[in-house]
Amino acid sequence: MTTVAAYAAPAAKAPLERTTIERRAVREFDVLIDIKFAGICHSDIHQAREGWGEAIFPMVPGHEIAGIVSEVGPGVTKFRVGDRVGVGCMVDSCRECDNCKAGLEQYCTGGNVGTYNALDKDGEPTYGGYAEKIVVDENYVLGIPEGISLDVAAPLLCAGITTYSPLKHWNAGPGKKVAIIGMGGLGHMGVKIAHALGAEVTVLSQTLSKKEDGLKLGADHYYATSDPKTFEELRGSLDLIISTVSAPLNLGAYLSLLKTDGALVNVGAPEEPVSLNLFSVIGGRKTLAGSGIGGIRETQEMLDFCAEHGFGAEIELISADQINEAYERVLASDVRYRFVIDTATI
Amino acid sequence: MTTVAAYAAPAAKAPLERTTIERRAVREFDVLIDIKFAGICHSDIHQAREGWGEAIFPMVPGHEIAGIVSEVGPGVTKFRVGDRVGVGCMVDSCRECDNCKAGLEQYCTGGNVGTYNALDKDGEPTYGGYAEKIVVDENYVLGIPEGISLDVAAPLLCAGITTYSPLKHWNAGPGKKVAIIGMGGLGHMGVKIAHALGAEVTVLSQTLSKKEDGLKLGADHYYATSDPKTFEELRGSLDLIISTVSAPLNLGAYLSLLKTDGALVNVGAPEEPVSLNLFSVIGGRKTLAGSGIGGIRETQEMLDFCAEHGFGAEIELISADQINEAYERVLASDVRYRFVIDTATI
Repeated sequence: MTTVAAYAAPAAKAPLERTTIERRAVREFDVLIDIKFAGICHSDIHQAREGWGEAIFPMVPGHEIAGIVSEVGPGVTKFRVGDRVGVGCMVDSCRECDNCKAGLEQYCTGGNVGTYNALDKDGEPTYGGYAEKIVVDENYVLGIPEGISLDVAAPLLCAGITTYSPLKHWNAGPGKKVAIIGMGGLGHMGVKIAHALGAEVTVLSQTLSKKEDGLKLGADHYYATSDPKTFEELRGSLDLIISTVSAPLNLGAYLSLLKTDGALVNVGAPEEPVSLNLFSVIGGRKTLAGSGIGGIRETQEMLDFCAEHGFGAEIELISADQINEAYERVLASDVRYRFVIDTATI
Repeated sequence: MTTVAAYAAPAAKAPLERTTIERRAVREFDVLIDIKFAGICHSDIHQAREGWGEAIFPMVPGHEIAGIVSEVGPGVTKFRVGDRVGVGCMVDSCRECDNCKAGLEQYCTGGNVGTYNALDKDGEPTYGGYAEKIVVDENYVLGIPEGISLDVAAPLLCAGITTYSPLKHWNAGPGKKVAIIGMGGLGHMGVKIAHALGAEVTVLSQTLSKKEDGLKLGADHYYATSDPKTFEELRGSLDLIISTVSAPLNLGAYLSLLKTDGALVNVGAPEEPVSLNLFSVIGGRKTLAGSGIGGIRETQEMLDFCAEHGFGAEIELISADQINEAYERVLASDVRYRFVIDTATI
């Protein structure tokens, strides 16, 4: 066991504060990672405030982790001390179900082990990336290519893969008109990735306040959803829409923007149920779907893709004592476009 | 113009009664059809009672039409006098949009012309199949193969194609576990077609009252959705679910029955919006979709498929004076499995 400094929420809705946690001793297939940077994901806030149901406290959030390997277990073959690595939303899964075997560990039928706010296979609570170090089985560790700095790589481990996976699955690419709803942490990555995949990219944001950034990151078009004309103008024009927002949307209005056989894929989701008139999918044989992060293999593919295209996330680097303030700013959509904690400041 | 006897609803929610309507004179590309049989679809009732919004009265419902060609226009090349033919839910479309060109006339972006309760391109109201005769452009007329009697063929024009199209589109076939929700007019066709396509078929019906029929028609399994154990037992086991019901379902419960990447496709729809928690599609990357009838080419393919496999619909043949009673029985789910009007009795 190693005692490491961390930032934790001691209870639901309580501010995060500096504390220490224990990391397990490195086992045969474990990798010890000196965490350098940890992104702040909107879902960290959902979970720390029990917006998604009862949670485990104290909670060390953080599932966008980038760092350097500082020790490996004797059975480890994939990583060596000094390697640049990342950890995303899961640190284990059953490894035996059809989904795990297919590289879709995110849909492990037994449930994967979340990087924090979960219990590992020994029944011990998991603690996330707002910490100095983490110990993870090598099969759930990703290599971060040389082409990306660790700070801008960290958010790829959730925001990157969460948008990359549905864009790939629903065939975003040349000749396809793809819209991204929301120009936040996930949305800005969706824009970059969809553009890099060769799609014609439209941003659908509440206002035009981030239009200049959106166009700079690769969007071809930028519309305000607060303007009803947007829905007239884009009616029936899109192949794929990725919704990254957790606000309850008027799904019918967005489905009306799709061509026949188009898909609206939700990677963000409100805590409450939404209302849907099924005629809005029957007309035009449309799909309303969802997607959750991505598998380990696909996450590595995404990191390699981003490195090849020379981009990471757009970030605001903060020190650990700014975490609580950053949470409020995330809730106010006041971040361009991901807060990343410099864990040296913990 | 030809005056023909018909059964019509004179106003919303009024009982249907015998009347006469005018059919246009046969034009260059028109086919005059002596209607022999007309199926009663649940949507006839929705529309005659304005459940789906304001409607055009008097209304002659009926979009499951089978009959014999009795006259053709000079430009007609596809049909001859004496041919056995059918007409489904549409009698025209723009013929120019991408969907029309792709054989997806049901999703015509300009809106296709419904067989009844619609205005044709001249602005004249269309009247459906509860009538002695109908005049239809040859491009919207289907050939009914010799292998199927006209009475059991009629319901294929809506109930058949509405289930065939999504079963084909979502790849029902050998090795696939397909469930059909609802064992009514559409549902029983879904069972027959899914079975003929080679899928392993499960019926999900409110009760087990039609279990024997379901198994006879090709279902491998039959479950009552009123039994909560059904949802435990089938959890995560299905590739595809076709919902044929217009009652508002607990979509989350049905989505939980799907495997990863499974699809719940709605061909029935309630008049009111339904409630959906988006997490039920995010977990397992599931699809909630819709599908409406099918294109003309695919409808012909479906008729040929049914003939090849030697089946039509299961019907109760009624005389025209039983239409109002039949409507009540449809609403009470008391029909096995489609009422078909012998139009000689009009």
